[in-house]
Amino acid sequence: MKFIFILTGKTNQQVFDKIIADYLGRLKHYINYEMIVIPEVKNAKNISISEHKEREADAIIKYIDNQDDVILLDEKGKQFSSVKFAEFIDKKCMSTYKRIVFVVGGPFGFSNRIYERANGLISMSAMTFSHQMIRLIFFEQLYRAMTIIKGEKYHHE
Amino acid sequence: MKFIFILTGKTNQQVFDKIIADYLGRLKHYINYEMIVIPEVKNAKNISISEHKEREADAIIKYIDNQDDVILLDEKGKQFSSVKFAEFIDKKCMSTYKRIVFVVGGPFGFSNRIYERANGLISMSAMTFSHQMIRLIFFEQLYRAMTIIKGEKYHHE
Repeated sequence: MKFIFILTGKTNQQVFDKIIADYLGRLKHYINYEMIVIPEVKNAKNISISEHKEREADAIIKYIDNQDDVILLDEKGKQFSSVKFAEFIDKKCMSTYKRIVFVVGGPFGFSNRIYERANGLISMSAMTFSHQMIRLIFFEQLYRAMTIIKGEKYHHE
Repeated sequence: MKFIFILTGKTNQQVFDKIIADYLGRLKHYINYEMIVIPEVKNAKNISISEHKEREADAIIKYIDNQDDVILLDEKGKQFSSVKFAEFIDKKCMSTYKRIVFVVGGPFGFSNRIYERANGLISMSAMTFSHQMIRLIFFEQLYRAMTIIKGEKYHHE
């Protein structure tokens, strides 16, 4: 199983990149992954929100194969405890899919095309976070999930 | 209304401190606050979890006045959307309390003494985060709440 992370837009603060790089470094010991960062939409100020979402969708869809298990990080998604999230990830790892694609969208959410393609929606919290924060949270939780699956001591119940 | 933040233990990565300092700097424009960092419990490896929580409680309780509105960040707490959290904070700001104290505990949760003293429990997510992450999330959400209350454009619905 290969994990594909599709992230929209660069983080604009190096400190976030540092922490994310730290979690990604730790994740290497547990999973095989590839990270794709979609550039920010150009001239974003001069286009409508729906046009913005369509352009992001064009870029995202290029990286998704027909056979992929596509999971969106979305406020409307299913919420988990960390332990339940670990179970979710563990099940995914044992599925017949060859690739699981996690997509972290831009500030306005996803185009309908992306929702229709998705196999599932997950949410890290009922709260809204900046795109930098949500990445941090996601990678920390994915790392935590791995330590839970492996029975390591990072996580306290 | 004065905000008091009681945090247990230092963050052990400077990059986290940097991001937290950034949000705290922004918060200065909206609220009057004081931050108290409780040192990590000494010899933590040689004491039981309940002893650990009691020692933390001893340190926390010193900074709480009888008249304070005390809110714990706790996994069992009430969850909010960012907009509902802003409403919660807005109401707090208009209350008759002189001080609102937010307590972010250690890795094992709080001693019963602290739960009994608390006026409320809030949760940022159903997930468990490292103590560094939870601070980051809390201060980002508090900053977001302020921008929502003031009608500024940081938050997108």
